[in-house]
Amino acid sequence: MGLMTRTPVRVRFSDVDSMGIVWHGQYIRYFEDGREDFGNTHGINYLDFHSRGYLIPIVKVGCDYKRPLRYGDTAIVETRFADTESAKISYEYTIYNEKTGEVVATGSSTQVFLNLNHELLLAFPLFFAEWKKKNGLMTGLTT
Amino acid sequence: MGLMTRTPVRVRFSDVDSMGIVWHGQYIRYFEDGREDFGNTHGINYLDFHSRGYLIPIVKVGCDYKRPLRYGDTAIVETRFADTESAKISYEYTIYNEKTGEVVATGSSTQVFLNLNHELLLAFPLFFAEWKKKNGLMTGLTT
Amino acid sequence: MGLMTRTPVRVRFSDVDSMGIVWHGQYIRYFEDGREDFGNTHGINYLDFHSRGYLIPIVKVGCDYKRPLRYGDTAIVETRFADTESAKISYEYTIYNEKTGEVVATGSSTQVFLNLNHELLLAFPLFFAEWKKKNGLMTGLTT
Amino acid sequence: MGLMTRTPVRVRFSDVDSMGIVWHGQYIRYFEDGREDFGNTHGINYLDFHSRGYLIPIVKVGCDYKRPLRYGDTAIVETRFADTESAKISYEYTIYNEKTGEVVATGSSTQVFLNLNHELLLAFPLFFAEWKKKNGLMTGLTT
Repeated sequence: MGLMTRTPVRVRFSDVDSMGIVWHGQYIRYFEDGREDFGNTHGINYLDFHSRGYLIPIVKVGCDYKRPLRYGDTAIVETRFADTESAKISYEYTIYNEKTGEVVATGSSTQVFLNLNHELLLAFPLFFAEWKKKNGLMTGLTT
Repeated sequence: MGLMTRTPVRVRFSDVDSMGIVWHGQYIRYFEDGREDFGNTHGINYLDFHSRGYLIPIVKVGCDYKRPLRYGDTAIVETRFADTESAKISYEYTIYNEKTGEVVATGSSTQVFLNLNHELLLAFPLFFAEWKKKNGLMTGLTT
Repeated sequence: MGLMTRTPVRVRFSDVDSMGIVWHGQYIRYFEDGREDFGNTHGINYLDFHSRGYLIPIVKVGCDYKRPLRYGDTAIVETRFADTESAKISYEYTIYNEKTGEVVATGSSTQVFLNLNHELLLAFPLFFAEWKKKNGLMTGLTT
Repeated sequence: MGLMTRTPVRVRFSDVDSMGIVWHGQYIRYFEDGREDFGNTHGINYLDFHSRGYLIPIVKVGCDYKRPLRYGDTAIVETRFADTESAKISYEYTIYNEKTGEVVATGSSTQVFLNLNHELLLAFPLFFAEWKKKNGLMTGLTT
């Protein structure tokens, strides 16, 4: 299984391009909406890291577009924590059209840990290791 | 007369809404493009202030829309320094369609001075007062 | 009194600029969020007009910034219908910080009516005149 | 070798997030800037397709982030046409920091062809097949 949140995101008028569909770059924002909701729900949002002295910049993002979204639609962003052994945070996203239930896009993102001097961490911050344990995710915690 | 810059801004595909015209909120960004070009040209950009210990947040902005801009158009943002006695920076903007020469929008913005503790300054920073003198703008410098 | 909606808008990470506060241009989007919520609630949203053959582009917008909003805050956008005799739709906005209750910004917007040939209407569309009557707003309906 | 353009893109103040670096979603826009410049230079931009009855929506995009960009930087977007046999348009992007010459990001995008009824084309439009021939790209043109 895995940890997951489902986040409704209303399509804004300004999200839509001249083809009458949501501009492809907006989906990166919808992923962020999902990721933030996940972080808020499970206690690992941007500010939870920042207050402990860590930055978590995105190092990789990707999106596959299946069907268009239009103004008036609501997107449901399903955000799944993708467990990994390396010192990274990975999420997988599936975006649904709320009305039809159809998949409109899938994607993924990867973040790394920096300290406040912007130096890369090669191991999980303790706080995050404990979070993983608490959630039954043991991968990468044996070192 | 007054200090002025003219800044070309190409309309991006993603600037255009489902009516096929530039979304009205983008003009605030075009004003910022003009203001930054003015600041770079005349030595009073955001970083010039920041490096001296000042923040210059926007406290007021307004825009009147006259004609639409479309994808493929280039906007010319005319940015004029609007001299004022109070401890503020004001600009007036006129946006033209490069191809037709027609005015597509006019607007204005006002910024104030904060120190890095986010406290409001009631007088011009010395650096800015000297900039005004150097440019023949004496207003508000008698105190 | 007057017709009014109150719309919560969560501040996105990507709404915030390098000063750590919501970028001033985002407030134009928050106004749009309020205006759309008002339109959905009261039956006069963008699509209600479009399906009857009208476009309602923005011709004027303005914003006064009082206090900053930060990542993690929720804005409450209060949108009031501002009755007018002319063939326009005007709204007034007050944005509050949900947590503190403080006013963070005020603003306004004006829209006109175009037909689908992009020609300006000099009188209210019948549909909108009836909407005004139904809501006890008689201004400009005597012609 | 291959067809390529190099497009300077100035980092806007509003592109930068609260970490002081360009928000990751903006790179999708920088890719679009590169792709549009390529299309304008080589006669296959969005409007060239649209005027012939084709839409070219994005079906896949990805970005790998190597180093941050900051306000005041200029990005150089290198856009390469990635030849393919299938009825798609693919580009590969490398973004450099103009000042340092360092690679800040790499990425790719894929577009498909729709007719104006939004139906997928399974073969190249003739116009695009001829463009490929003219540019010495024969792949996928034997059918």
